[in-house]
Amino acid sequence: MGIKTLSDHYPTRVGARPEFIKRVDPVVWGGPEDGPLSAEQLARFERNGCLIVEGVFSQDEVDSFNTRLDEMSRDPDVQNDPGTITEPESNEVRSVFDVHKNDALFKATAEDRRVADIARQILDSQVYLHQSRINFKPGFAGKEFWWHSDFETWHAEDGMPRMRALSASITLTDNYEVNGPLMIVSGSQNTFVTTVGETPEDHYKSSLQRQQIGVPDEESLARLISDGEILTMTGRAGSVVFFDCNVMHASAGNITPFPRSNVFLVYNSVENTLEEPFAASSPRPEFLASRDFTPVGA
Amino acid sequence: MGIKTLSDHYPTRVGARPEFIKRVDPVVWGGPEDGPLSAEQLARFERNGCLIVEGVFSQDEVDSFNTRLDEMSRDPDVQNDPGTITEPESNEVRSVFDVHKNDALFKATAEDRRVADIARQILDSQVYLHQSRINFKPGFAGKEFWWHSDFETWHAEDGMPRMRALSASITLTDNYEVNGPLMIVSGSQNTFVTTVGETPEDHYKSSLQRQQIGVPDEESLARLISDGEILTMTGRAGSVVFFDCNVMHASAGNITPFPRSNVFLVYNSVENTLEEPFAASSPRPEFLASRDFTPVGA
Repeated sequence: MGIKTLSDHYPTRVGARPEFIKRVDPVVWGGPEDGPLSAEQLARFERNGCLIVEGVFSQDEVDSFNTRLDEMSRDPDVQNDPGTITEPESNEVRSVFDVHKNDALFKATAEDRRVADIARQILDSQVYLHQSRINFKPGFAGKEFWWHSDFETWHAEDGMPRMRALSASITLTDNYEVNGPLMIVSGSQNTFVTTVGETPEDHYKSSLQRQQIGVPDEESLARLISDGEILTMTGRAGSVVFFDCNVMHASAGNITPFPRSNVFLVYNSVENTLEEPFAASSPRPEFLASRDFTPVGA
Repeated sequence: MGIKTLSDHYPTRVGARPEFIKRVDPVVWGGPEDGPLSAEQLARFERNGCLIVEGVFSQDEVDSFNTRLDEMSRDPDVQNDPGTITEPESNEVRSVFDVHKNDALFKATAEDRRVADIARQILDSQVYLHQSRINFKPGFAGKEFWWHSDFETWHAEDGMPRMRALSASITLTDNYEVNGPLMIVSGSQNTFVTTVGETPEDHYKSSLQRQQIGVPDEESLARLISDGEILTMTGRAGSVVFFDCNVMHASAGNITPFPRSNVFLVYNSVENTLEEPFAASSPRPEFLASRDFTPVGA
Protein backbone atom coordinates (compact mmCIF):
# COMPACT_ATOMS: atom_id res chain seq x y z
CA MET A 1 0.00 0.00 0.00
CA GLY A 2 2.95 2.39 -0.10
CA ILE A 3 4.39 4.29 2.80
CA LYS A 4 2.17 6.37 5.03
CA THR A 5 3.21 10.04 5.11
CA LEU A 6 4.88 11.02 8.34
CA SER A 7 2.38 13.68 9.23
CA ASP A 8 -1.31 13.90 8.49
CA HIS A 9 -2.13 17.46 7.47
CA TYR A 10 -5.86 16.83 7.56
CA PRO A 11 -6.76 14.64 10.56
CA THR A 12 -10.49 13.82 10.61
CA ARG A 13 -12.97 11.50 12.35
CA VAL A 14 -10.80 11.54 15.48
CA GLY A 15 -11.94 14.50 17.59
CA ALA A 16 -15.00 14.99 19.75
CA ARG A 17 -15.91 18.22 17.98
CA PRO A 18 -15.60 19.40 14.37
CA GLU A 19 -12.66 21.70 13.62
CA PHE A 20 -11.71 24.10 10.84
CA ILE A 21 -8.21 23.42 9.50
CA LYS A 22 -6.61 25.85 7.08
CA ARG A 23 -5.75 24.23 3.74
CA VAL A 24 -1.99 23.87 3.27
CA ASP A 25 -2.08 22.94 -0.44
CA PRO A 26 -2.64 25.30 -3.36
CA VAL A 27 -6.03 25.24 -5.12
CA VAL A 28 -4.48 26.09 -8.50
CA TRP A 29 -1.06 24.55 -9.10
CA GLY A 30 -0.40 25.55 -12.73
CA GLY A 31 -0.47 28.83 -14.64
CA PRO A 32 -2.09 30.10 -17.86
CA GLU A 33 0.98 28.89 -19.80
CA ASP A 34 0.26 25.29 -18.75
CA GLY A 35 -3.03 24.71 -20.56
CA PRO A 36 -6.26 25.95 -22.08
CA LEU A 37 -7.59 28.07 -19.16
CA SER A 38 -6.84 31.79 -19.10
CA ALA A 39 -5.42 33.59 -16.08
CA GLU A 40 -8.90 34.95 -15.45
CA GLN A 41 -10.45 31.45 -15.48
CA LEU A 42 -7.76 30.10 -13.17
CA ALA A 43 -8.33 33.00 -10.78
CA ARG A 44 -12.05 32.22 -10.76
CA PHE A 45 -11.40 28.56 -10.00
CA GLU A 46 -9.07 29.60 -7.19
CA ARG A 47 -11.63 32.03 -5.73
CA ASN A 48 -14.78 29.91 -6.07
CA GLY A 49 -13.37 26.39 -5.99
CA CYS A 50 -15.18 25.72 -9.27
CA LEU A 51 -15.51 26.79 -12.89
CA ILE A 52 -18.07 26.06 -15.58
CA VAL A 53 -16.82 25.74 -19.14
CA GLU A 54 -19.83 25.90 -21.46
CA GLY A 55 -20.27 24.01 -24.72
CA VAL A 56 -17.29 21.68 -24.41
CA PHE A 57 -19.22 18.81 -25.97
CA SER A 58 -21.51 19.18 -29.00
CA GLN A 59 -25.16 18.18 -29.00
CA ASP A 60 -24.25 15.16 -31.16
CA GLU A 61 -21.74 14.01 -28.57
CA VAL A 62 -24.23 14.55 -25.76
CA ASP A 63 -26.81 12.52 -27.71
CA SER A 64 -24.41 9.62 -28.09
CA PHE A 65 -23.58 9.74 -24.36
CA ASN A 66 -27.28 9.65 -23.51
CA THR A 67 -27.96 6.76 -25.87
CA ARG A 68 -25.19 4.78 -24.22
CA LEU A 69 -26.45 5.73 -20.74
CA ASP A 70 -29.90 4.55 -21.61
CA GLU A 71 -28.59 1.19 -22.77
CA MET A 72 -26.54 0.83 -19.60
CA SER A 73 -29.41 1.61 -17.23
CA ARG A 74 -31.42 -1.22 -18.83
CA ASP A 75 -28.56 -3.72 -19.03
CA PRO A 76 -28.97 -6.49 -16.40
CA ASP A 77 -25.19 -6.92 -16.19
CA VAL A 78 -24.80 -3.25 -15.31
CA GLN A 79 -27.76 -3.36 -12.91
CA ASN A 80 -26.23 -6.24 -10.97
CA ASP A 81 -22.66 -4.95 -10.96
CA PRO A 82 -21.26 -4.08 -7.49
CA GLY A 83 -20.23 -0.75 -9.02
CA THR A 84 -23.88 0.11 -9.67
CA ILE A 85 -25.81 1.93 -6.96
CA THR A 86 -29.59 1.90 -6.90
CA GLU A 87 -32.18 4.07 -5.13
CA PRO A 88 -33.08 2.63 -1.69
CA GLU A 89 -36.81 2.61 -2.43
CA SER A 90 -37.37 2.22 -6.17
CA ASN A 91 -34.26 0.18 -7.00
CA GLU A 92 -33.67 2.36 -10.06
CA VAL A 93 -30.09 2.88 -11.16
CA ARG A 94 -28.65 6.00 -9.54
CA SER A 95 -24.92 5.73 -10.23
CA VAL A 96 -22.67 3.51 -12.31
CA PHE A 97 -19.01 3.54 -11.29
CA ASP A 98 -15.80 2.76 -13.13
CA VAL A 99 -17.11 3.73 -16.55
CA HIS A 100 -13.62 4.79 -17.64
CA LYS A 101 -12.53 1.17 -17.27
CA ASN A 102 -15.63 -0.70 -18.35
CA ASP A 103 -16.93 1.29 -21.29
CA ALA A 104 -15.05 2.28 -24.44
CA LEU A 105 -17.00 5.49 -24.99
CA PHE A 106 -16.49 6.79 -21.47
CA LYS A 107 -12.83 5.67 -21.44
CA ALA A 108 -12.27 7.90 -24.48
CA THR A 109 -14.20 10.70 -22.76
CA ALA A 110 -12.05 10.49 -19.64
CA GLU A 111 -8.96 10.85 -21.83
CA ASP A 112 -10.46 13.60 -24.00
CA ARG A 113 -7.96 16.47 -24.02
CA ARG A 114 -10.74 19.08 -23.78
CA VAL A 115 -11.23 17.87 -20.22
CA ALA A 116 -7.94 16.22 -19.22
CA ASP A 117 -5.78 19.17 -20.32
CA ILE A 118 -7.66 21.42 -17.90
CA ALA A 119 -7.18 18.90 -15.09
CA ARG A 120 -3.44 18.72 -15.88
CA GLN A 121 -3.24 22.53 -15.97
CA ILE A 122 -4.96 23.13 -12.63
CA LEU A 123 -3.01 20.33 -10.93
CA ASP A 124 0.24 21.10 -12.84
CA SER A 125 1.19 17.45 -13.39
CA GLN A 126 0.17 14.29 -15.12
CA VAL A 127 -3.12 12.98 -13.78
CA TYR A 128 -4.83 9.61 -13.40
CA LEU A 129 -8.46 8.66 -12.79
CA HIS A 130 -9.19 8.20 -9.09
CA GLN A 131 -12.84 7.46 -9.77
CA SER A 132 -15.39 7.75 -12.55
CA ARG A 133 -19.12 7.47 -12.49
CA ILE A 134 -22.34 8.35 -14.20
CA ASN A 135 -25.11 9.85 -12.06
CA PHE A 136 -28.75 9.54 -13.01
CA LYS A 137 -31.16 11.89 -11.30
CA PRO A 138 -34.57 11.11 -12.77
CA GLY A 139 -37.39 13.60 -13.02
CA PHE A 140 -39.76 13.79 -10.01
CA ALA A 141 -37.86 11.20 -7.97
CA GLY A 142 -34.34 12.64 -7.73
CA LYS A 143 -33.12 12.56 -4.15
CA GLU A 144 -30.94 15.19 -2.58
CA PHE A 145 -27.22 14.75 -1.97
CA TRP A 146 -26.20 16.20 1.39
CA TRP A 147 -23.31 18.65 1.75
CA HIS A 148 -19.84 17.14 1.75
CA SER A 149 -16.22 17.61 0.82
CA ASP A 150 -15.08 14.77 -1.44
CA PHE A 151 -11.57 15.06 -0.07
CA GLU A 152 -12.69 14.31 3.47
CA THR A 153 -13.77 10.83 2.34
CA TRP A 154 -10.92 10.32 -0.11
CA HIS A 155 -8.44 11.18 2.63
CA ALA A 156 -10.08 9.25 5.46
CA GLU A 157 -11.17 6.16 3.57
CA ASP A 158 -8.98 6.04 0.44
CA GLY A 159 -5.67 7.37 1.73
CA MET A 160 -5.35 10.38 -0.60
CA PRO A 161 -2.65 12.38 1.18
CA ARG A 162 -3.01 15.95 -0.12
CA MET A 163 -5.49 18.24 -1.85
CA ARG A 164 -4.31 17.94 -5.44
CA ALA A 165 -7.34 16.43 -7.16
CA LEU A 166 -10.48 17.73 -8.83
CA SER A 167 -13.74 16.55 -10.33
CA ALA A 168 -14.98 17.24 -13.82
CA SER A 169 -18.72 16.87 -14.25
CA ILE A 170 -19.88 16.63 -17.84
CA THR A 171 -23.55 17.61 -17.91
CA LEU A 172 -25.68 15.37 -20.11
CA THR A 173 -28.92 17.24 -19.48
CA ASP A 174 -29.68 20.93 -19.20
CA ASN A 175 -29.24 22.05 -15.61
CA TYR A 176 -31.74 24.62 -14.38
CA GLU A 177 -32.14 26.27 -11.01
CA VAL A 178 -35.20 24.10 -10.43
CA ASN A 179 -34.02 20.55 -11.13
CA GLY A 180 -31.55 20.08 -8.33
CA PRO A 181 -28.32 21.43 -9.83
CA LEU A 182 -24.96 21.08 -8.11
CA MET A 183 -24.60 23.71 -5.37
CA ILE A 184 -21.11 24.81 -4.40
CA VAL A 185 -20.01 26.91 -1.42
CA SER A 186 -17.50 29.33 -2.90
CA GLY A 187 -14.43 29.77 -0.70
CA SER A 188 -15.04 26.57 1.26
CA GLN A 189 -12.19 24.85 -0.61
CA ASN A 190 -9.76 26.74 1.65
CA THR A 191 -10.97 25.13 4.87
CA PHE A 192 -10.85 21.48 5.83
CA VAL A 193 -13.82 20.77 8.09
CA THR A 194 -13.16 17.71 10.21
CA THR A 195 -16.04 15.38 10.90
CA VAL A 196 -16.93 13.49 14.03
CA GLY A 197 -17.41 9.75 14.44
CA GLU A 198 -15.34 6.71 13.50
CA THR A 199 -15.62 5.12 10.08
CA PRO A 200 -17.63 1.89 10.33
CA GLU A 201 -16.52 -1.31 8.58
CA ASP A 202 -17.55 -1.36 4.88
CA HIS A 203 -18.88 2.15 5.29
CA TYR A 204 -19.10 2.64 1.51
CA LYS A 205 -21.99 0.18 1.19
CA SER A 206 -24.37 2.44 3.08
CA SER A 207 -22.69 5.81 2.50
CA LEU A 208 -23.36 5.73 -1.22
CA GLN A 209 -27.07 5.74 -0.54
CA ARG A 210 -27.27 8.14 2.40
CA GLN A 211 -24.12 9.26 4.10
CA GLN A 212 -24.03 9.70 7.90
CA ILE A 213 -20.33 9.55 8.79
CA GLY A 214 -17.92 11.89 7.05
CA VAL A 215 -20.42 14.69 6.53
CA PRO A 216 -20.14 18.05 8.24
CA ASP A 217 -22.44 19.18 11.01
CA GLU A 218 -25.02 21.93 10.50
CA GLU A 219 -23.18 24.50 12.61
CA SER A 220 -19.97 24.15 10.60
CA LEU A 221 -21.94 24.32 7.37
CA ALA A 222 -23.78 27.46 8.41
CA ARG A 223 -20.44 29.08 9.28
CA LEU A 224 -18.82 28.08 5.97
CA ILE A 225 -21.81 29.28 3.98
CA SER A 226 -22.00 32.60 5.81
CA ASP A 227 -18.33 33.16 4.95
CA GLY A 228 -18.93 32.28 1.28
CA GLU A 229 -21.83 32.06 -1.10
CA ILE A 230 -23.85 29.21 -2.58
CA LEU A 231 -23.28 29.03 -6.33
CA THR A 232 -25.54 26.88 -8.52
CA MET A 233 -24.02 25.15 -11.51
CA THR A 234 -26.61 25.71 -14.22
CA GLY A 235 -25.98 25.44 -17.93
CA ARG A 236 -26.71 23.60 -21.14
CA ALA A 237 -25.96 19.92 -21.68
CA GLY A 238 -22.39 19.49 -22.88
CA SER A 239 -20.88 21.92 -20.37
CA VAL A 240 -18.18 20.79 -17.96
CA VAL A 241 -18.13 21.84 -14.31
CA PHE A 242 -14.67 21.58 -12.75
CA PHE A 243 -14.56 21.65 -8.98
CA ASP A 244 -11.91 21.30 -6.34
CA CYS A 245 -11.61 18.12 -4.26
CA ASN A 246 -12.26 19.96 -0.99
CA VAL A 247 -15.02 22.40 -1.96
CA MET A 248 -18.24 21.85 0.00
CA HIS A 249 -21.06 20.85 -2.32
CA ALA A 250 -24.53 19.31 -2.40
CA SER A 251 -27.55 19.06 -4.61
CA ALA A 252 -31.18 19.53 -3.72
CA GLY A 253 -33.93 17.09 -4.58
CA ASN A 254 -35.62 17.26 -7.96
CA ILE A 255 -39.43 17.43 -8.10
CA THR A 256 -39.57 18.67 -11.69
CA PRO A 257 -40.05 16.34 -14.66
CA PHE A 258 -36.58 17.32 -15.91
CA PRO A 259 -33.99 14.57 -15.33
CA ARG A 260 -30.39 15.40 -14.51
CA SER A 261 -27.52 13.17 -15.59
CA ASN A 262 -23.82 13.67 -15.74
CA VAL A 263 -20.50 11.92 -16.10
CA PHE A 264 -18.19 12.47 -13.14
CA LEU A 265 -14.48 12.11 -13.64
CA VAL A 266 -12.12 12.51 -10.69
CA TYR A 267 -8.58 13.37 -11.69
CA ASN A 268 -5.81 13.07 -9.14
CA SER A 269 -2.22 14.22 -9.57
CA VAL A 270 0.30 11.41 -10.08
CA GLU A 271 2.27 13.22 -7.36
CA ASN A 272 -0.55 12.49 -4.91
CA THR A 273 -1.21 8.77 -5.24
CA LEU A 274 -3.03 6.84 -2.56
CA GLU A 275 -1.49 5.54 0.63
CA GLU A 276 -3.21 3.70 3.46
CA PRO A 277 -6.50 5.21 4.61
CA PHE A 278 -6.03 7.97 7.17
CA ALA A 279 -9.16 7.13 9.16
CA ALA A 280 -10.51 3.70 8.19
CA SER A 281 -9.43 0.16 8.88
CA SER A 282 -9.29 -0.85 5.22
CA PRO A 283 -9.40 0.96 1.89
CA ARG A 284 -12.56 1.17 -0.21
CA PRO A 285 -12.83 -1.03 -3.30
CA GLU A 286 -11.12 -0.22 -6.60
CA PHE A 287 -14.27 1.03 -8.28
CA LEU A 288 -14.45 3.85 -5.73
CA ALA A 289 -10.76 4.55 -5.34
CA SER A 290 -8.56 3.23 -8.10
CA ARG A 291 -5.01 2.12 -7.30
CA ASP A 292 -4.12 1.99 -10.96
CA PHE A 293 -2.07 5.18 -11.13
CA THR A 294 -1.34 5.02 -14.87
CA PRO A 295 -1.42 8.59 -16.19
CA VAL A 296 -4.26 9.51 -18.52
CA GLY A 297 -3.06 9.48 -22.14
CA ALA A 298 0.11 7.54 -21.33
CA MET B 1 -74.52 24.62 4.19
CA GLY B 2 -76.19 26.54 1.36
CA ILE B 3 -77.53 25.04 -1.81
CA LYS B 4 -75.35 22.88 -4.00
CA THR B 5 -74.90 24.34 -7.49
CA LEU B 6 -76.85 22.48 -10.13
CA SER B 7 -73.83 21.60 -12.21
CA ASP B 8 -70.27 20.92 -11.14
CA HIS B 9 -67.92 22.61 -13.59
CA TYR B 10 -64.86 20.90 -12.13
CA PRO B 11 -65.67 17.28 -11.27
CA THR B 12 -62.68 15.55 -9.64
CA ARG B 13 -61.81 12.36 -7.72
CA VAL B 14 -64.51 10.49 -9.63
CA GLY B 15 -62.90 9.12 -12.80
CA ALA B 16 -60.54 6.24 -13.33
CA ARG B 17 -58.04 8.42 -15.18
CA PRO B 18 -56.95 12.06 -14.78
CA GLU B 19 -58.50 14.54 -17.21
CA PHE B 20 -57.71 18.06 -18.36
CA ILE B 21 -60.75 20.37 -18.10
CA LYS B 22 -60.63 23.85 -19.59
CA ARG B 23 -61.16 26.56 -16.99
CA VAL B 24 -64.51 28.31 -17.44
CA ASP B 25 -63.84 31.21 -15.04
CA PRO B 26 -61.71 34.28 -15.72
CA VAL B 27 -58.29 34.48 -14.05
CA VAL B 28 -58.48 38.29 -13.77
CA TRP B 29 -61.94 39.64 -13.02
CA GLY B 30 -61.24 43.36 -12.54
CA GLY B 31 -59.43 46.02 -14.55
CA PRO B 32 -56.70 48.60 -13.89
CA GLU B 33 -59.39 51.10 -12.80
CA ASP B 34 -60.40 48.78 -9.93
CA GLY B 35 -57.24 48.91 -7.83
CA PRO B 36 -53.50 49.37 -7.45
CA LEU B 37 -52.26 46.99 -10.18
CA SER B 38 -51.50 48.37 -13.64
CA ALA B 39 -52.85 46.86 -16.86
CA GLU B 40 -49.41 45.40 -17.42
CA GLN B 41 -49.35 43.76 -13.96
CA LEU B 42 -52.85 42.35 -14.44
CA ALA B 43 -51.83 40.95 -17.83
CA ARG B 44 -48.84 39.28 -16.22
CA PHE B 45 -51.01 37.71 -13.52
CA GLU B 46 -53.39 36.47 -16.21
CA ARG B 47 -50.56 34.99 -18.28
CA ASN B 48 -48.49 33.42 -15.49
CA GLY B 49 -51.11 32.82 -12.82
CA CYS B 50 -48.91 34.76 -10.40
CA LEU B 51 -47.30 38.12 -9.72
CA ILE B 52 -44.61 39.26 -7.30
CA VAL B 53 -44.96 42.73 -5.83
CA GLU B 54 -41.65 43.66 -4.24
CA GLY B 55 -41.14 45.73 -1.10
CA VAL B 56 -44.76 45.89 0.06
CA PHE B 57 -43.72 45.61 3.71
CA SER B 58 -40.78 47.48 5.23
CA GLN B 59 -37.92 45.78 7.02
CA ASP B 60 -39.35 47.07 10.34
CA GLU B 61 -42.68 45.42 9.60
CA VAL B 62 -40.95 42.18 8.58
CA ASP B 63 -38.96 42.26 11.82
CA SER B 64 -42.10 42.60 13.90
CA PHE B 65 -43.73 39.72 12.01
CA ASN B 66 -40.69 37.54 12.66
CA THR B 67 -40.60 38.43 16.34
CA ARG B 68 -44.22 37.43 16.67
CA LEU B 69 -43.62 34.22 14.70
CA ASP B 70 -40.78 33.28 16.95
CA GLU B 71 -42.95 33.76 20.05
CA MET B 72 -45.70 31.68 18.51
CA SER B 73 -43.45 28.75 17.55
CA ARG B 74 -42.33 28.50 21.19
CA ASP B 75 -45.79 28.98 22.74
CA PRO B 76 -47.12 25.66 24.14
CA ASP B 77 -50.71 26.80 23.48
CA VAL B 78 -49.88 27.32 19.81
CA GLN B 79 -47.90 24.07 19.65
CA ASN B 80 -50.86 22.07 20.94
CA ASP B 81 -53.55 23.83 18.90
CA PRO B 82 -55.33 21.61 16.34
CA GLY B 83 -54.59 24.37 13.82
CA THR B 84 -50.86 23.82 14.26
CA ILE B 85 -49.13 21.29 12.02
CA THR B 86 -45.79 19.78 12.97
CA GLU B 87 -43.11 17.94 10.98
CA PRO B 88 -43.73 14.16 10.97
CA GLU B 89 -40.23 13.39 12.26
CA SER B 90 -38.94 16.29 14.33
CA ASN B 91 -42.29 17.54 15.67
CA GLU B 92 -41.20 21.12 14.92
CA VAL B 93 -43.90 23.60 14.03
CA ARG B 94 -44.41 23.71 10.27
CA SER B 95 -47.66 25.65 9.88
CA VAL B 96 -49.98 27.63 12.11
CA PHE B 97 -53.48 28.15 10.73
CA ASP B 98 -56.14 30.74 11.37
CA VAL B 99 -53.74 33.51 12.30
CA HIS B 100 -56.17 36.14 10.95
CA LYS B 101 -58.62 35.10 13.67
CA ASN B 102 -56.30 34.28 16.55
CA ASP B 103 -53.65 36.96 16.38
CA ALA B 104 -54.14 40.73 16.37
CA LEU B 105 -51.03 41.46 14.31
CA PHE B 106 -51.90 38.99 11.57
CA LYS B 107 -55.56 40.02 11.59
CA ALA B 108 -54.45 43.56 10.79
CA THR B 109 -52.11 42.21 8.12
CA ALA B 110 -54.89 40.24 6.43
CA GLU B 111 -56.94 43.45 6.26
CA ASP B 112 -54.02 45.63 5.18
CA ARG B 113 -55.13 47.49 2.06
CA ARG B 114 -51.73 47.04 0.39
CA VAL B 115 -52.65 43.36 0.07
CA ALA B 116 -56.45 43.22 0.24
CA ASP B 117 -56.97 45.93 -2.41
CA ILE B 118 -55.06 43.81 -4.91
CA ALA B 119 -57.16 40.76 -4.04
CA ARG B 120 -60.35 42.82 -4.50
CA GLN B 121 -59.04 44.15 -7.83
CA ILE B 122 -58.14 40.78 -9.31
CA LEU B 123 -61.37 39.17 -8.11
CA ASP B 124 -63.47 42.30 -8.77
CA SER B 125 -65.58 42.02 -5.61
CA GLN B 126 -65.44 42.17 -1.86
CA VAL B 127 -63.34 39.33 -0.46
CA TYR B 128 -63.22 37.30 2.73
CA LEU B 129 -60.52 35.09 4.23
CA HIS B 130 -60.98 31.44 3.25
CA GLN B 131 -57.84 30.43 5.11
CA SER B 132 -54.76 31.94 6.68
CA ARG B 133 -51.57 30.37 7.85
CA ILE B 134 -47.93 30.91 8.61
CA ASN B 135 -45.44 28.46 7.12
CA PHE B 136 -42.08 27.80 8.68
CA LYS B 137 -39.47 26.13 6.53
CA PRO B 138 -36.37 25.87 8.68
CA GLY B 139 -32.85 25.79 7.32
CA PHE B 140 -31.43 22.32 6.51
CA ALA B 141 -34.62 20.48 7.42
CA GLY B 142 -37.26 22.05 5.16
CA LYS B 143 -39.27 19.37 3.42
CA GLU B 144 -40.60 19.65 -0.09
CA PHE B 145 -44.25 20.40 -0.91
CA TRP B 146 -45.43 18.30 -3.82
CA TRP B 147 -47.18 19.87 -6.86
CA HIS B 148 -50.84 20.71 -6.42
CA SER B 149 -53.64 23.06 -7.34
CA ASP B 150 -55.16 24.58 -4.21
CA PHE B 151 -58.53 24.83 -5.92
CA GLU B 152 -58.71 21.08 -6.48
CA THR B 153 -58.81 20.57 -2.71
CA TRP B 154 -60.91 23.63 -1.95
CA HIS B 155 -63.47 22.47 -4.48
CA ALA B 156 -63.47 18.78 -3.59
CA GLU B 157 -63.20 19.04 0.19
CA ASP B 158 -64.40 22.57 1.05
CA GLY B 159 -67.18 23.12 -1.51
CA MET B 160 -65.71 26.19 -3.21
CA PRO B 161 -67.81 26.32 -6.39
CA ARG B 162 -65.79 28.40 -8.85
CA MET B 163 -62.28 29.69 -9.49
CA ARG B 164 -62.52 33.15 -7.99
CA ALA B 165 -59.97 33.04 -5.20
CA LEU B 166 -56.27 33.69 -4.82
CA SER B 167 -53.44 33.39 -2.34
CA ALA B 168 -51.18 36.17 -1.15
CA SER B 169 -47.89 35.00 0.32
CA ILE B 170 -46.03 37.61 2.33
CA THR B 171 -42.39 36.57 2.43
CA LEU B 172 -40.79 36.97 5.84
CA THR B 173 -37.34 35.76 4.77
CA ASP B 174 -35.35 36.40 1.62
CA ASN B 175 -36.22 33.78 -0.98
CA TYR B 176 -33.34 32.56 -3.10
CA GLU B 177 -33.20 29.98 -5.86
CA VAL B 178 -31.44 27.64 -3.45
CA ASN B 179 -33.67 27.60 -0.35
CA GLY B 180 -36.74 25.95 -1.78
CA PRO B 181 -38.73 28.90 -3.11
CA LEU B 182 -42.29 28.57 -4.39
CA MET B 183 -42.29 27.15 -7.93
CA ILE B 184 -45.23 27.97 -10.17
CA VAL B 185 -46.16 26.46 -13.54
CA SER B 186 -47.09 29.45 -15.67
CA GLY B 187 -50.22 28.85 -17.72
CA SER B 188 -51.39 25.91 -15.63
CA GLN B 189 -54.11 28.10 -14.06
CA ASN B 190 -56.11 27.64 -17.27
CA THR B 191 -56.47 23.88 -16.93
CA PHE B 192 -58.22 21.95 -14.19
CA VAL B 193 -56.42 18.63 -13.77
CA THR B 194 -58.71 16.09 -12.16
CA THR B 195 -57.22 13.66 -9.71
CA VAL B 196 -57.96 9.99 -9.15
CA GLY B 197 -59.08 8.30 -5.94
CA GLU B 198 -61.84 8.96 -3.44
CA THR B 199 -61.33 11.34 -0.53
CA PRO B 200 -60.81 9.35 2.68
CA GLU B 201 -62.60 10.31 5.91
CA ASP B 202 -60.77 13.10 7.79
CA HIS B 203 -58.34 13.35 4.90
CA TYR B 204 -56.98 16.69 6.11
CA LYS B 205 -55.29 15.10 9.11
CA SER B 206 -52.79 13.24 6.97
CA SER B 207 -52.83 15.45 3.85
CA LEU B 208 -51.33 18.40 5.67
CA GLN B 209 -48.21 16.39 6.32
CA ARG B 210 -47.84 14.52 3.03
CA GLN B 211 -50.66 14.59 0.54
CA GLN B 212 -51.53 11.44 -1.46
CA ILE B 213 -55.10 12.03 -2.65
CA GLY B 214 -55.90 15.20 -4.56
CA VAL B 215 -52.49 15.56 -6.14
CA PRO B 216 -51.88 15.24 -9.86
CA ASP B 217 -50.10 12.30 -11.45
CA GLU B 218 -46.62 12.61 -12.97
CA GLU B 219 -47.82 12.29 -16.55
CA SER B 220 -50.29 15.15 -16.22
CA LEU B 221 -47.65 17.26 -14.51
CA ALA B 222 -45.09 16.63 -17.22
CA ARG B 223 -47.66 17.65 -19.85
CA LEU B 224 -48.64 20.84 -17.98
CA ILE B 225 -45.02 21.81 -17.43
CA SER B 226 -44.06 21.19 -21.05
CA ASP B 227 -46.89 23.51 -22.08
CA GLY B 228 -45.77 26.19 -19.62
CA GLU B 229 -42.67 27.08 -17.69
CA ILE B 230 -41.58 26.72 -14.07
CA LEU B 231 -41.20 30.15 -12.47
CA THR B 232 -39.47 30.53 -9.12
CA MET B 233 -40.72 33.18 -6.73
CA THR B 234 -37.51 34.73 -5.42
CA GLY B 235 -37.23 38.11 -3.77
CA ARG B 236 -36.48 40.04 -0.63
CA ALA B 237 -38.41 39.65 2.60
CA GLY B 238 -41.44 41.93 2.59
CA SER B 239 -42.50 41.06 -0.96
CA VAL B 240 -45.94 39.65 -1.67
CA VAL B 241 -46.50 36.82 -4.14
CA PHE B 242 -50.06 36.70 -5.46
CA PHE B 243 -51.09 33.48 -7.14
CA ASP B 244 -54.25 32.09 -8.62
CA CYS B 245 -56.26 29.40 -6.83
CA ASN B 246 -55.80 26.88 -9.63
CA VAL B 247 -52.18 27.42 -10.64
CA MET B 248 -50.01 24.33 -10.17
CA HIS B 249 -47.30 24.96 -7.61
CA ALA B 250 -44.79 23.22 -5.36
CA SER B 251 -41.64 23.91 -3.46
CA ALA B 252 -38.44 21.90 -3.32
CA GLY B 253 -36.71 20.85 -0.14
CA ASN B 254 -34.29 23.21 1.56
CA ILE B 255 -30.82 21.92 2.43
CA THR B 256 -29.32 25.38 2.90
CA PRO B 257 -29.01 27.07 6.31
CA PHE B 258 -31.42 29.78 5.12
CA PRO B 259 -34.92 29.40 6.60
CA ARG B 260 -38.00 30.32 4.64
CA SER B 261 -41.12 31.66 6.32
CA ASN B 262 -44.20 33.36 5.01
CA VAL B 263 -47.72 34.39 5.85
CA PHE B 264 -50.32 32.85 3.54
CA LEU B 265 -53.64 34.61 3.11
CA VAL B 266 -56.32 33.06 0.93
CA TYR B 267 -58.89 35.55 -0.31
CA ASN B 268 -62.11 34.29 -1.83
CA SER B 269 -64.75 36.41 -3.56
CA VAL B 270 -67.94 36.93 -1.54
CA GLU B 271 -69.71 35.88 -4.77
CA ASN B 272 -68.07 32.45 -4.45
CA THR B 273 -68.83 31.32 -0.90
CA LEU B 274 -68.62 27.69 0.11
CA GLU B 275 -71.31 25.09 -0.50
CA GLU B 276 -71.20 21.40 0.36
CA PRO B 277 -67.96 19.61 -0.61
CA PHE B 278 -67.99 18.44 -4.22
CA ALA B 279 -66.04 15.24 -3.53
CA ALA B 280 -65.91 14.52 0.19
CA SER B 281 -68.39 13.21 2.72
CA SER B 282 -67.98 16.15 5.11
CA PRO B 283 -66.33 19.56 4.96
CA ARG B 284 -62.92 20.23 6.48
CA PRO B 285 -62.74 22.14 9.76
CA GLU B 286 -63.11 25.91 10.00
CA PHE B 287 -59.39 26.57 10.43
CA LEU B 288 -58.80 25.16 6.95
CA ALA B 289 -61.93 26.45 5.23
CA SER B 290 -63.68 29.28 6.99
CA ARG B 291 -67.46 29.58 6.72
CA ASP B 292 -67.38 33.08 8.15
CA PHE B 293 -67.95 35.00 4.93
CA THR B 294 -67.69 38.48 6.46
CA PRO B 295 -65.95 40.73 3.94
CA VAL B 296 -62.47 41.95 4.85
CA GLY B 297 -62.65 45.54 6.10
CA ALA B 298 -66.41 45.43 6.65
